[in-house]
Amino acid sequence: MPNRSVFFVSDGTGITAETFGNSILAQFPGKSRHVRRPFIDSVEKARAVLDEINQVADAEGRKPIVFITLVNDDVRRIITDDACRGRVLDMFKHFVEPLEDEFGVKSNHRVGRFSDAAKSTEYNERIEAINFSLAHDDGQSARNLAAADVILLGVSRCGKTPTSLYLAMQHGIKAANYPLIPEDFERNTLPSSLVPHLKKCFGLTIDPERLAQIRNERRPGSKYAALENCRYEVHAAETLMRRSSIGWLSSTHKSIEEIATTILRDIAPDRLIY
Amino acid sequence: MPNRSVFFVSDGTGITAETFGNSILAQFPGKSRHVRRPFIDSVEKARAVLDEINQVADAEGRKPIVFITLVNDDVRRIITDDACRGRVLDMFKHFVEPLEDEFGVKSNHRVGRFSDAAKSTEYNERIEAINFSLAHDDGQSARNLAAADVILLGVSRCGKTPTSLYLAMQHGIKAANYPLIPEDFERNTLPSSLVPHLKKCFGLTIDPERLAQIRNERRPGSKYAALENCRYEVHAAETLMRRSSIGWLSSTHKSIEEIATTILRDIAPDRLIY
Repeated sequence: MPNRSVFFVSDGTGITAETFGNSILAQFPGKSRHVRRPFIDSVEKARAVLDEINQVADAEGRKPIVFITLVNDDVRRIITDDACRGRVLDMFKHFVEPLEDEFGVKSNHRVGRFSDAAKSTEYNERIEAINFSLAHDDGQSARNLAAADVILLGVSRCGKTPTSLYLAMQHGIKAANYPLIPEDFERNTLPSSLVPHLKKCFGLTIDPERLAQIRNERRPGSKYAALENCRYEVHAAETLMRRSSIGWLSSTHKSIEEIATTILRDIAPDRLIY
Repeated sequence: MPNRSVFFVSDGTGITAETFGNSILAQFPGKSRHVRRPFIDSVEKARAVLDEINQVADAEGRKPIVFITLVNDDVRRIITDDACRGRVLDMFKHFVEPLEDEFGVKSNHRVGRFSDAAKSTEYNERIEAINFSLAHDDGQSARNLAAADVILLGVSRCGKTPTSLYLAMQHGIKAANYPLIPEDFERNTLPSSLVPHLKKCFGLTIDPERLAQIRNERRPGSKYAALENCRYEVHAAETLMRRSSIGWLSSTHKSIEEIATTILRDIAPDRLIY
């Protein structure tokens, strides 16, 4: 789909439309131009978007792809009408309507996961989890580890911080993270503050070659970044985790989303918001 | 849908299935029990999930809802077959197939936005953006503000940090954030380090009542948290931003997702990964 324009039209943020749309578009080669049109909640705004879609269709000589999440029928009709010269993919039609049938109730036509949720308990717990994860980043605080849902362990720069923040932001999980450092390897035991919480611990490891590359970007030519030192640290960290029966995985070929999914599956925290 | 079980079955992380599924389920009252089954990439694993779905159907006397993102036809067929006693919502069938038709090419059957992307340039830029946003949280560093895509301004505890992290994590945006503090209000000018970057600045504000409540959770009974002080700071911050023609919005009734969407629309950074 070279140079294809893709519209994301929503009466909310359009995040649902775009997340899902990206996942679908990733099935196809080529790169597309993204046009976000959030907060389209009136017939007037929808008409303006319709004009835009049709102008793009004329200019490019091809149908733009149009992902929509529009719950208001009057608004939706404008974009799904024959007058629209885009290829419209209606995310609610194929899913909301079958569920209305299955549940035997009408949907209440709220949009997305966020709209009313903004100041709900659930939302506030997510924000609290983000604050917790920031305060417990990189072993900054051993206080209150009992309140953590998950504690990530691993050598410096193996991916603990982004994974913790992702768990907090996306799932409302209080994720602390704790670096394993040379002192731990010399002592050859886990930091004592972690011992009461082994069930919540999850390890990350990484290929020493990749680790050396990442560390060299930070501190070029340092002992910290030297491949030999990285090999030593990774091996020592894995030995410590194995001995304590802490599950772990390698971040080398995994995204934070994949790592987070595995952690949720394996640790299965009691308190899981999403 | 009281006590309805919902399965998310995917050959990848299932994040797409779940994000979209949650958005659809939010249209209906009631709470559902979520069952995540990620990494279902073989016929054997699919059969095990099928058994699980059917057991739940029998136990609950109702069809579980089953959101699937499965690209392998053999795997998918097991879950979409008549033998499955769940209500299956197939996220690819309604979207991938029409696009194959529109583009005139077969999809390449990758799953989700993450699978091959893990170590792509795009992914590494996201991780770099997260590190940048952490290093530039709360005005920690005025170095390298030129490299920021967006700079968020506002009084302490108005929501800058979670919004910056969200922009970085979700959109690969390097979002610095900078607190407006009593010294700025006394001087009655913006911090001088921001002046070269006004075009990238975006303000957050908040109802003083809500701000006082948030600050009181942190420092109960302090001057910092007093309603009168919050009123003064919010008013002074808005005055500063207005005078510098910095766009802003209130976080009081908005989620970080909604705020981020508005910022992307208004600032329109050149470098927008997602």
